[in-house]
Amino acid sequence: MKRYRKEFGFSYALGMTVTFELISARPEKVRAIYVHPCVTKNDSYFKLVGMCKALGIQPIESEKAFNILSPKENCFVIGEFEKYTTKLDGGAPHTVLVSPMNAGNVGTVLRTALGLGYDNVALIEPCADIFSPEVVRASMGALFRLNVEVFKSIDEYRARFAHNLYPFMLSASLPIDKVEFASPFALVFGNEAHGLPEEFASLGQSVIIPCTDKVDSLNLSIAAAIGMYEAKKRTV
Amino acid sequence: MKRYRKEFGFSYALGMTVTFELISARPEKVRAIYVHPCVTKNDSYFKLVGMCKALGIQPIESEKAFNILSPKENCFVIGEFEKYTTKLDGGAPHTVLVSPMNAGNVGTVLRTALGLGYDNVALIEPCADIFSPEVVRASMGALFRLNVEVFKSIDEYRARFAHNLYPFMLSASLPIDKVEFASPFALVFGNEAHGLPEEFASLGQSVIIPCTDKVDSLNLSIAAAIGMYEAKKRTV
Repeated sequence: MKRYRKEFGFSYALGMTVTFELISARPEKVRAIYVHPCVTKNDSYFKLVGMCKALGIQPIESEKAFNILSPKENCFVIGEFEKYTTKLDGGAPHTVLVSPMNAGNVGTVLRTALGLGYDNVALIEPCADIFSPEVVRASMGALFRLNVEVFKSIDEYRARFAHNLYPFMLSASLPIDKVEFASPFALVFGNEAHGLPEEFASLGQSVIIPCTDKVDSLNLSIAAAIGMYEAKKRTV
Repeated sequence: MKRYRKEFGFSYALGMTVTFELISARPEKVRAIYVHPCVTKNDSYFKLVGMCKALGIQPIESEKAFNILSPKENCFVIGEFEKYTTKLDGGAPHTVLVSPMNAGNVGTVLRTALGLGYDNVALIEPCADIFSPEVVRASMGALFRLNVEVFKSIDEYRARFAHNLYPFMLSASLPIDKVEFASPFALVFGNEAHGLPEEFASLGQSVIIPCTDKVDSLNLSIAAAIGMYEAKKRTV
């Protein structure tokens, strides 16, 4: 049991709900389940024990695991899992995040994507580590049910997929409620601090979410949510 | 200079951008501006100095302020301000948050509200402290440009405003793209963990944001964003 590092071949799902998602969606990747000695032995706990039993796993009672991995959080269950790779579905719509650095944002986008029916998410490096416990937790375990691929550059992504790109930009773009999203499409969102570089405008029909002039921009996870929500309704 | 507490009559805007918003939107509430000795003396810095001068305020160079208020953050400017109250506009649409507890969520909703043209936000207690530095920072200073009122209960809110209520619920609700939002309207969102209590369904036309069955619900700030975005287009 070690504090997580990106180089590891394994990571951790922190919390009961996230661990449920891990066990349900990726049972073959579960390496261990840790339970805090102070966990409340309620219905959720017994459901967890039952799921572990079905997998042939004995939960490990250990306070130390929690001190190392989750010193500040209100967390009583941890799932340790082996990392894995998934491939994007070439026929489905894609959500593409270019250099998102904040783990909370990435996790929230993953959860929203799963909720709105976007099961395929691409990340362009540099970016937050998708398997970090912070991303996993912010996604509420949605990560385990998605196809997520990391690319070295947008060019590497484009070499694999011929999706129609819709870069979400702040200037010189068509308002989203005027855009027709031609399948298969990819919605492309920029970094939290800087948005997308200018050159993305030439990669496809650029899109803007109309805003008042009282804010510079919307938060990345908010822009991605509105983008995914509206594009689904305006697909041609 | 003290670590912030809710009882204080003043609070802090952490960071250059947030402090700009404070000075621009509520100049009469600024009590002091602190500058870290290591601040980069770039255009933003000189703009800040100019704004302070126009207000008759001498920025205070102090490392101590930052150690106390922002020990972990990458923050080089702090604005100290007096708290104030604002009143909701009775003719405008309202965003109502019932018992939101997470400062990051509340701040993000405030920023989104300002961006989407909802300038009036009600919070129902118990709720996060709207003037906490965490809310102010997550809002990117949007707080300073909004009318925000805190009510003891939804009944206290309803006694003041006759808005048509649209509670966002998970069950037995009309999909948002079928709802007509009759002005003046209030969009009502529940707590992060539990959503809205059942009894809210009887207060107005309840609304659901259609989701796949792969997630329990959307994050509060995401649901509020999609709600505000779509309601604006479906106003009658």
